[in-house]
Amino acid sequence: MIERLKKQLELVVELDRLKSILRRTRVKSAEGRLENTAEHSWHVAIMAILLEEYANEPVDISKVVQMLLFHDIVEIDAGDTFIYDVESARNQEEAELKAAERLFGILPDDQGQKYLALWKEFEEAATPEARFAKALDRLIPVMLNYCNEGQSWKEHGVHKHQVLSMNQRIEQGSTCLWDYALEIIDQAANNNWLKL
Amino acid sequence: MIERLKKQLELVVELDRLKSILRRTRVKSAEGRLENTAEHSWHVAIMAILLEEYANEPVDISKVVQMLLFHDIVEIDAGDTFIYDVESARNQEEAELKAAERLFGILPDDQGQKYLALWKEFEEAATPEARFAKALDRLIPVMLNYCNEGQSWKEHGVHKHQVLSMNQRIEQGSTCLWDYALEIIDQAANNNWLKL
Repeated sequence: MIERLKKQLELVVELDRLKSILRRTRVKSAEGRLENTAEHSWHVAIMAILLEEYANEPVDISKVVQMLLFHDIVEIDAGDTFIYDVESARNQEEAELKAAERLFGILPDDQGQKYLALWKEFEEAATPEARFAKALDRLIPVMLNYCNEGQSWKEHGVHKHQVLSMNQRIEQGSTCLWDYALEIIDQAANNNWLKL
Repeated sequence: MIERLKKQLELVVELDRLKSILRRTRVKSAEGRLENTAEHSWHVAIMAILLEEYANEPVDISKVVQMLLFHDIVEIDAGDTFIYDVESARNQEEAELKAAERLFGILPDDQGQKYLALWKEFEEAATPEARFAKALDRLIPVMLNYCNEGQSWKEHGVHKHQVLSMNQRIEQGSTCLWDYALEIIDQAANNNWLKL
């Protein structure tokens, strides 16, 4: 087999491990088991396709989708951090960069550099694509939590002000979707699914 | 909330159910639990991005990725069929079309029609994008099975000739990847992971 293909397939096989990284949201249809990062990445990528029209600025949707498919692969080495756990999140940055360098480093050089740059672009949130992708990545757990009657917020004693401050950046990607988020966060607080 | 966004979000929430549809491949890193269709869809979409250069014909990779993210959502209603179970596969077609019409029918009309057409394009395999997407969808379980020492083939008593005939269409999307598939199928048979 050609050397180039071998490296690419090595990463494909390595990425299988993302299916065992668990998040805090439970999957309602799957008897409440915890969601893993691979299926989350699928869900948020498809959400981007369906909601493209709500991006604040025009976006290259192919790039948004690629960012979202790759954005969390670093969790294979660095694990998932609950966004309301501010202390852990602070230590995460370095571990994630190291993971990105290792994983994209498996690829042939040209391709590895391209996708490492895409991953960094997402992290830096300085382009319309990255801002929209980040907005959706924040919105989807809020939405699933709302549909689960606040399950992960209740399990971890999360306050309304935390949800508001950690998710406010949704507004930078889509004011329209931030309006929707505010609506369901208010309702969740009214239902006592969030602490006040 | 505007009516249009409401319909789009309804589908996003409905799609969460794909995370509970189980396939026959076991996830090595997750203590051998069965893979679900949502995480499979993520894996094969990312594989398409990484292996685009091996498509027999030039492809619009954004379209290939979108096809792969949506291709199996019909399993929410119709369930997953093991490709080596030819009898069930025959009855599946009608159930899947009905499911596609229901699911894409949740969306605003313009969007629903667009993605139903994309789903049908994948099914018909008559464009370069659909042929390449189909090739990858066939290749990834062969590859994961090979990495799992033939797990699902052994569990279901699959013969080498079945794997060859059911996966030969990989060649229509990528002769290069079909050569690779032939190589690992031969090795699997030599290791007695497939019946002769």
